Amino acid sequence: MNENQHPFDAAIALRPEGEGAWHGHTSPAYANMIGPFGGITAAQALNAVLQHPQRLGEPVAYTVNFAAPVADGPFLALARPARTNRSTQHWIAELRQGDQTVATATAVTAVRRDTWGATELAMPAVPPPPAVPRPLARGKVEWINRYEMRFVEGAYPPAWDGTHSEDSRTCLWLRDEPPRPLDFASLTALADVFFPRIWRRRATRTPIGTVSMTVYFHAGGAQLARTGSGHLLGQAHAHGFRDGYFDQTAQLWNEAGDLLATSHQIVYYKE
Amino acid sequence: MNENQHPFDAAIALRPEGEGAWHGHTSPAYANMIGPFGGITAAQALNAVLQHPQRLGEPVAYTVNFAAPVADGPFLALARPARTNRSTQHWIAELRQGDQTVATATAVTAVRRDTWGATELAMPAVPPPPAVPRPLARGKVEWINRYEMRFVEGAYPPAWDGTHSEDSRTCLWLRDEPPRPLDFASLTALADVFFPRIWRRRATRTPIGTVSMTVYFHAGGAQLARTGSGHLLGQAHAHGFRDGYFDQTAQLWNEAGDLLATSHQIVYYKE
Repeated sequence: MNENQHPFDAAIALRPEGEGAWHGHTSPAYANMIGPFGGITAAQALNAVLQHPQRLGEPVAYTVNFAAPVADGPFLALARPARTNRSTQHWIAELRQGDQTVATATAVTAVRRDTWGATELAMPAVPPPPAVPRPLARGKVEWINRYEMRFVEGAYPPAWDGTHSEDSRTCLWLRDEPPRPLDFASLTALADVFFPRIWRRRATRTPIGTVSMTVYFHAGGAQLARTGSGHLLGQAHAHGFRDGYFDQTAQLWNEAGDLLATSHQIVYYKE
Repeated sequence: MNENQHPFDAAIALRPEGEGAWHGHTSPAYANMIGPFGGITAAQALNAVLQHPQRLGEPVAYTVNFAAPVADGPFLALARPARTNRSTQHWIAELRQGDQTVATATAVTAVRRDTWGATELAMPAVPPPPAVPRPLARGKVEWINRYEMRFVEGAYPPAWDGTHSEDSRTCLWLRDEPPRPLDFASLTALADVFFPRIWRRRATRTPIGTVSMTVYFHAGGAQLARTGSGHLLGQAHAHGFRDGYFDQTAQLWNEAGDLLATSHQIVYYKE
């Protein structure tokens, strides 16, 4: 690890181990309550695809399934192209610890071409990042401190007093802390930054765990590079909560109002 | 094939071929312009998981990636549990034709428990199914005739004249034709029934192909059984269209207003 390296780059670093296999290690900088922040695990598995010498094009769709708690320590990342077409490629990836699978993933990469386009869901009109204060308190878990979050709407409940809200929406400006130029790996992790929608609804710290997350990339690498280390506006809400699982749908725009990614996840909750 | 069998059951039927492998066959009843309707391919791959003797619980999340055109004819469906926990299980599945992968999939199955719940996105207020007329014309492709569709809002453009619309939303009552009791496989296919959002926006039959689709199941098998062969209200819209790919987000409720599934997909378009 390089001392000048951004903690995100250190966290997703992979060391090749033969064809389609890499060694990685969980990062204390992205620690969650138990094990790592799911967004960093997602980025690590995607990075195996990004590092693969046979990769064609850039990520368009990515799904990661959190199969088991990731233990602090080393892991093996596996990625293989299941199908390579002329301009698209389909990937299957896994993270393993010992002889156990802790995450599965699929990705679609593609060479994108210029076409007609439109952003149907415009970025909400909100005050610019400097006009939105940052929370003063450090995060209770370490990974929170790796992100700058400026809540425009739907911040953490002011008290964990069980007050019900009918609306799970959160809207915030966010970026890596310290700032880091945006790329597919960091955008993937940023798509998982939203705190659990059920906490927003119930002001109760119900134990939760994301089971599966999908990210659709609406921007190519050049557009992410143009976004640089600027803020993203992130918005998330749920559609339904039932029998131990709720969903979350999120959108991420850059400050220029370009929709960079939409993301969806389904989350286990205890009660 | 049983003559009294519903065409959907005939289409997703799988014949076991050893551990975690099944023979299947495309169905002319669900033919699309070229190859089969994606929803039936999705249901076939899910059915391999559903048929697996080691399956634990019911589907909660399912992602299928359409890796290549499916040729009319036989296929092999493969499914393996990548991880089995106490109450959740993670699956990797593939459809193969010859030695080529034509679809990859992951699924999460789980034993669901009763918890606090809420439907945050209420079913839109719309006229009941009998009050909404069915299109008179037969579908141009065969699979369309396997679904009853009553468009409440956002039907096919009245003319393919390139008129732009700012809104991609479609809302319709839908069910199998002939009616069939709802289950996880048919709900998966129903989540793919919406015609391409880009046709809705541009009134132009741009060539398209779904690349990846995710379904989150908000209901268990008992609730699907209670829904029976009643209508579902389906609603879909896009967030963004850019450089050859657009997304679609959909919700499906039963007539009682229970949110049964949310679904997302990313779709290739040519120009």
